[in-house]
Amino acid sequence: MKIEYNLLTKDKNSQARYGKLKTNYGTFETPMFMPVGTKATVKSLTPEELKAVGSGIVLANTYHLWLRPGEDIVHRCGGLHSFMHYDGPILTDSGGFQVFSLAKNKDKDITEEGVHFKSHIDGQNLLLTPEKSIEIQNKLDSDIAMSFDECPPASASHEYLKNSVERTLRWAKRGKAVHRNPNQALFGIVQGGAYEDLRKYSALETVKMDFDGYSIGGVANDGESKEDMYKAIDYSIPYLPEDKVRYLMGVGEPIDIIEGVIRGIDIFDCVLPTRIARHGQAFTRHGKINFHNAKFKEDLSPVEEGCDCYTCQNYSKAYIRHLITTDEMLGGRLLSIHNIRFLIKITEELREAIKEGRVLEYKDNFIKEYNKNSGTN
Amino acid sequence: MKIEYNLLTKDKNSQARYGKLKTNYGTFETPMFMPVGTKATVKSLTPEELKAVGSGIVLANTYHLWLRPGEDIVHRCGGLHSFMHYDGPILTDSGGFQVFSLAKNKDKDITEEGVHFKSHIDGQNLLLTPEKSIEIQNKLDSDIAMSFDECPPASASHEYLKNSVERTLRWAKRGKAVHRNPNQALFGIVQGGAYEDLRKYSALETVKMDFDGYSIGGVANDGESKEDMYKAIDYSIPYLPEDKVRYLMGVGEPIDIIEGVIRGIDIFDCVLPTRIARHGQAFTRHGKINFHNAKFKEDLSPVEEGCDCYTCQNYSKAYIRHLITTDEMLGGRLLSIHNIRFLIKITEELREAIKEGRVLEYKDNFIKEYNKNSGTN
Repeated sequence: MKIEYNLLTKDKNSQARYGKLKTNYGTFETPMFMPVGTKATVKSLTPEELKAVGSGIVLANTYHLWLRPGEDIVHRCGGLHSFMHYDGPILTDSGGFQVFSLAKNKDKDITEEGVHFKSHIDGQNLLLTPEKSIEIQNKLDSDIAMSFDECPPASASHEYLKNSVERTLRWAKRGKAVHRNPNQALFGIVQGGAYEDLRKYSALETVKMDFDGYSIGGVANDGESKEDMYKAIDYSIPYLPEDKVRYLMGVGEPIDIIEGVIRGIDIFDCVLPTRIARHGQAFTRHGKINFHNAKFKEDLSPVEEGCDCYTCQNYSKAYIRHLITTDEMLGGRLLSIHNIRFLIKITEELREAIKEGRVLEYKDNFIKEYNKNSGTN
Repeated sequence: MKIEYNLLTKDKNSQARYGKLKTNYGTFETPMFMPVGTKATVKSLTPEELKAVGSGIVLANTYHLWLRPGEDIVHRCGGLHSFMHYDGPILTDSGGFQVFSLAKNKDKDITEEGVHFKSHIDGQNLLLTPEKSIEIQNKLDSDIAMSFDECPPASASHEYLKNSVERTLRWAKRGKAVHRNPNQALFGIVQGGAYEDLRKYSALETVKMDFDGYSIGGVANDGESKEDMYKAIDYSIPYLPEDKVRYLMGVGEPIDIIEGVIRGIDIFDCVLPTRIARHGQAFTRHGKINFHNAKFKEDLSPVEEGCDCYTCQNYSKAYIRHLITTDEMLGGRLLSIHNIRFLIKITEELREAIKEGRVLEYKDNFIKEYNKNSGTN
C-alpha cells in the first residue's frame, strides 16, 4: 500500500474537509499540522514527545539528509523510520525549496536537467535533478515523497513563472517515471504564483499525471503576501480531485492554517513553531508572546492557561523566561512542545468545527481573540 | 526536618558505605551520583528524565541563580522545587567555587569579609560573603545548603592553604550563625589541599561546629592530580562522623567515583556527563567514545549494549553520530541521558557490591574493562 485518503465530512459553509489519511505507519486525521524534522529530528524533541502533542506525521528534508548523513547510510540503517526511531508517517520534501533558498543566486544555475549549486556546508558543486531527488527519497523510505519542483521567488514575472511551471511539469513527469518504492506515495506540486491562469494550468496538468496526493507550493517564499497565498490556494483547489489529500507547503501561522483549511487544505508544515521557540517566543490564543519580556519575570501562570501540553501543565512563565534569558536548551525545548501542540490543537478544533459546520464562526472567534492583545505582548 | 542519614551496611574490605538519605522531598540511597543543574536545569533534560535514570538528588548553583533570575524571584516562585518543577531533593552549592573559578584573578579580591569580584555576565562589582551565600540558599529553599568556602588553586602552598583553611572555618561559622531555613540542612566543607595536617585540622574543626553533613572540597580544581584527590579524601575521612553523610565535590570520572566510594564517600556531583555529551562523547564500560569518529557512521548498535537508558533502548550510534555532527540539540540530550545513567548505574552497582562485600573486586573488574579499549575509541 502507498496511502489511502478518506474524505469523511465537508463543512457546510466552506471548502473545509475532515478526513483520514492511512499510511503503512499509521492513520491520522486531517486537517493536520506536520512538524518539521529537517535533519531527521524535530529540533530538540523525541518522537514520543511529538506523539504526545498529537502529531500525526513528520516532515524530513531530502536536501539536508542527502548531504548528511547521505541517503545510503539512512537506507542501510533501515530507512528513516528506523534511523530516527519514529514509527509514525513521514513525508520527505524534494529538496527543491532548499536548493532554491539556501544556495546563493550566483552559485545556482537552473537548467532543464536540474539545479547546479554549491553545498551550503562545504561549497562543493552539486547537481540535484528530478530523478536524483526521487531516488534519494526512495532510499530514505518515507511514506510520502514530493516531486522536485522549481520554487521561483515571490517577485517572479508572469513570463518567468509560465516557463517555470512548464519545467516543473516536465520535472514532475521525469521524477514519477523513476519512482520505484512500492510503499511510498508520490505527490505532485502545483505552482504558478498568484496567477489564476498559471495555477489552473499547473493544477490540471499535474492532476493528469495522477499522483497520490497534491501540494500547493510557492506560497511560503520570502516576500509572499497573505493575499497572494490565499489566491494561490483559491486558484488551485478547484482543479484538484476531492478524493486525494491536499498539502499546503511551508505554512504555519495560526491564521493561515485556518484560512487554508477553509479553502480546502488538509495538511500543513512549517518550521515556525520550533524556530520561534528557540528565539523565546510562544503562540497563545491572544497572539505571540516573547519571553525576553521582563513582565514575565515572576509570572507563575503557564504559557497559556488551559493548554494541555506538558510545558503548560508543569512550568511557569517565570521559569521559562529564566531558561530563555540564560540560553538554557530546555527553554527552547519546552516552548517547542507548546508551540507545536498549539498548532495541532487548532487543527483538532477545526476538525470538530468541520463536523459541526461552524468553521467560519471558529475563524471569526479565533481572529478576534488572537488580535486582542496584538502588539502588547 | 532537615535531613536524616542512615548508614545501613559497610563493605568488609574498604571504607565503602551503603546508606539512605531522607529529605523532605524524598529518600534516596547512597552512594549516589548527583547531576548538576547549574541554572536550575540539568542542561536539556526534564526532571522526569532525571528520575527515569535513577537520579536521587540534583545540584543547583547559588552563584548563577543569585545573578539570574535572583534568589528573590525564585523565592517568590515558591522556591527551587516549585520553580524548576522538581519534587525531589535539591542541594545548592555555596557559590564559592564559581566565584573563585569564573572571576579572573585580577578581578577578584579575597578579604576576611568575603570575595569581591566582577560578575561574569556584565562585569558588575559584586561581593559574596558567607552570610550572603547562606541567605541566598535559605531563599532558594534547597534541601541541603553548603557553607561558603575558599577554593584555592591546586598549586597553592602549605602556608597559603593553612591561612585559607582558617578563613574557611571562620566563614563556615559565620554562615552557620545566620542559617535560618528550618527545612534545609547545612553542610560543612573540609579543605586543606593534599596536606595531611591541614585536612585533619580542617575536618576536626569543621566537625566541632556540628553540621548536618560534610563535604570534601578542593579536589576538582584544574591541575589537581588523582593522587592528590585520593590523599585529600584519605586524610579527611577518619575525622568525619560515621552517622553523617559525606559528599565529594565536583568529582565525576567513573573511576574516581569508585575510588571515592572505596574511601567512604556517599555523594558525588560533576558537570562531566552533560558537558561531554554536548561535545559528542559518551561513557561506556570500555572507556569514553567520541561520536565525531567516522567509524560510527553506519553503526546500528546502541551507545552501549545492555544499557537500560532511554537512549540505548531506542537509538543507534549511527543516528546519534548524525545528530552530533549536524549540531542537532537532540544529540546532546540523548547522550546526557546515557552519561548520567552510566554514572548512576555505577553507584547502583556499588551499592550492591557493598552489601555483598565485593567492592574492591568490582573496582578491579571495572578498571580492567574500562581501560581495555583505551585510546582506540
